[in-house]
Amino acid sequence: MSHKKLFIPGPTEVLPDILEAMAMPMIGHRSKDYSALQGETTPKVQQCLYTKNQIIVSTSSSTGLMEAAVLNFVRPGKKVLACMCGAFSDRWSKIAKANNKDVIELKVDWGMGIHPEMIDDILAKQAEEIDLVLLVMNETSTGVLNPAKEIQAVVNKYRDAGVMMAIDAVSAMMVVPIKVDEWEVDFVLAGVQKAWSLPPGLAVAAMSERAIERANEVPHRGYYFDLLEYVKSNAKDQTPSTPAISQINALRVMATRILEQEGLENRWARHARQADMVRNWATSRGFEIFPEKGFYSQALTCVKNNLGISVADLNSALGKRGKMISNGYGKLKEETFRISHMGDIYEKDLEELLADIDDILGFK
Amino acid sequence: MSHKKLFIPGPTEVLPDILEAMAMPMIGHRSKDYSALQGETTPKVQQCLYTKNQIIVSTSSSTGLMEAAVLNFVRPGKKVLACMCGAFSDRWSKIAKANNKDVIELKVDWGMGIHPEMIDDILAKQAEEIDLVLLVMNETSTGVLNPAKEIQAVVNKYRDAGVMMAIDAVSAMMVVPIKVDEWEVDFVLAGVQKAWSLPPGLAVAAMSERAIERANEVPHRGYYFDLLEYVKSNAKDQTPSTPAISQINALRVMATRILEQEGLENRWARHARQADMVRNWATSRGFEIFPEKGFYSQALTCVKNNLGISVADLNSALGKRGKMISNGYGKLKEETFRISHMGDIYEKDLEELLADIDDILGFK
Repeated sequence: MSHKKLFIPGPTEVLPDILEAMAMPMIGHRSKDYSALQGETTPKVQQCLYTKNQIIVSTSSSTGLMEAAVLNFVRPGKKVLACMCGAFSDRWSKIAKANNKDVIELKVDWGMGIHPEMIDDILAKQAEEIDLVLLVMNETSTGVLNPAKEIQAVVNKYRDAGVMMAIDAVSAMMVVPIKVDEWEVDFVLAGVQKAWSLPPGLAVAAMSERAIERANEVPHRGYYFDLLEYVKSNAKDQTPSTPAISQINALRVMATRILEQEGLENRWARHARQADMVRNWATSRGFEIFPEKGFYSQALTCVKNNLGISVADLNSALGKRGKMISNGYGKLKEETFRISHMGDIYEKDLEELLADIDDILGFK
Repeated sequence: MSHKKLFIPGPTEVLPDILEAMAMPMIGHRSKDYSALQGETTPKVQQCLYTKNQIIVSTSSSTGLMEAAVLNFVRPGKKVLACMCGAFSDRWSKIAKANNKDVIELKVDWGMGIHPEMIDDILAKQAEEIDLVLLVMNETSTGVLNPAKEIQAVVNKYRDAGVMMAIDAVSAMMVVPIKVDEWEVDFVLAGVQKAWSLPPGLAVAAMSERAIERANEVPHRGYYFDLLEYVKSNAKDQTPSTPAISQINALRVMATRILEQEGLENRWARHARQADMVRNWATSRGFEIFPEKGFYSQALTCVKNNLGISVADLNSALGKRGKMISNGYGKLKEETFRISHMGDIYEKDLEELLADIDDILGFK
């Protein structure tokens, strides 16, 4: 099959040096070679997240670490507050319920953001009942970026009541800064196939000392996603069960490239420019931006299809030109379309894509 | 780092064409291209397992699907019978307990096998209490191959009482035949980094209609390992959460190679010859075979270190020659050593390895 360049919100385009890193010959995962690999990789991830916290390297998709949060951080009799603003945050509530957790649902319309005051209002009344707030930082289904820093600050006011927050940064990590230690983030996770621009199969998280203490108070955390097992194995730069060695090697190569070649701040700036570029293109062609103003994602742009184009036809025509964007997610299909500009998609790639779309839709 | 050829029980040696398959450019996991990939791969896995059952493709290590078994097949108030004969079967009991399941433990000394009569004796008395038997077919820590076919036949006598069995075939699948439909196996799992000879990061299972019915009777199966979600997604040749696309592509290439080039029966025969070769070498040098007679693994040979060599020194000397074997597992360290001969390790590789060991230990 001929390869299409991916402008979709994950998996994102993967560059040749990373594909080469995926093809490393195997090593034993209990060997010194493996410990050296993990031991070289996790400090780089710490540096990317501005933290000294434990790094969890999970052989799973992000969904696995979303489940880990509800399994590890909610004590018996306590509740979860799920902030729901799109398909993936809605699903986190479902994951909590599948694990028999008592969930309070804070729902906003798809396209709207989670405002810090909404959380403050709920915690002011119910902090004693709630052990864990679930926040999706960048909601891929609607293109909403929630103000995680400000929301974390609100949650931290209720620390003494036992409230913690888990942040799904699946399509935010490596797009915008996440300063774990400064913001006092207890748990933040992502899958590597989004803005890390690696093939899927690995999820990473940073976990604070406080999060470790909390997990110690929770019985029956399951096994595969028992985060204390990961912390224990981290002491030997290993994992509790067999790790996805190829993806970890790819992560090592990518983190090195970001830190030593592009630079973290240059990366954030590039993603901000790319987001501007796509939003400006969309509005200049008469489209509207779908999410609430002030909550625009830097990772992908969710465009409202107010011009009534056929998104399926557009994507099919783009496919013939070796490119792929995303239709709206679930109930937003054909109502919106999504162009991802995170990871290893660069300005010249977007210029070509937008010129192709102009040509296909007859703009200009 | 220079590559060492792996004679360890996983990850096993991975050949260049498979490493190349790991380096495939990314495709969207909700795209037709991906469905075509999964749709091409799973029928080949079915063929390798002699079954028409659903194939589960899990982005996790085997441990994840071991947990899936206890999460999906045990109804409230019912018990698990864990057959324990080494580190990995012992761990399955621990996984069940971590999920708050009531476990009956059938323990034999490390090195001994699970005899069908042992299961029959327990089920004859307690079948009504027990929903699930956990059997590790090939116990990698001790080199024991349990008679899964015969044990499945015993368990099947107690079907009307509700007893099911889950088989961990982690280091048995693709070494010896597993005839799922003929044996009436309800659930059998493996990780791809053992005798499939692929990089780790993916586990596969075959799941019967009866297993699906059972899961439907179990509330709170969690989310990531809820097998009914996989069955639902299989209808579209997709997975509930983002799959490890690279490993699935590698599995497609490998299954094709096995079915169309080597042939399944030739593969079983080769592994049997290789096992003979290593066992004969060991006994001719004065070593004993560690496991109980009649329960020798075809995947790896666990050699009793009755000659009192330093296994660590031997492996270190082998390392300088670009090869790696395994020390004994856990409490068997230095008491035994293990030579894996599964997957893409061939007779000429073993000849070289054994000649090196002879040379290092001063045999002949």
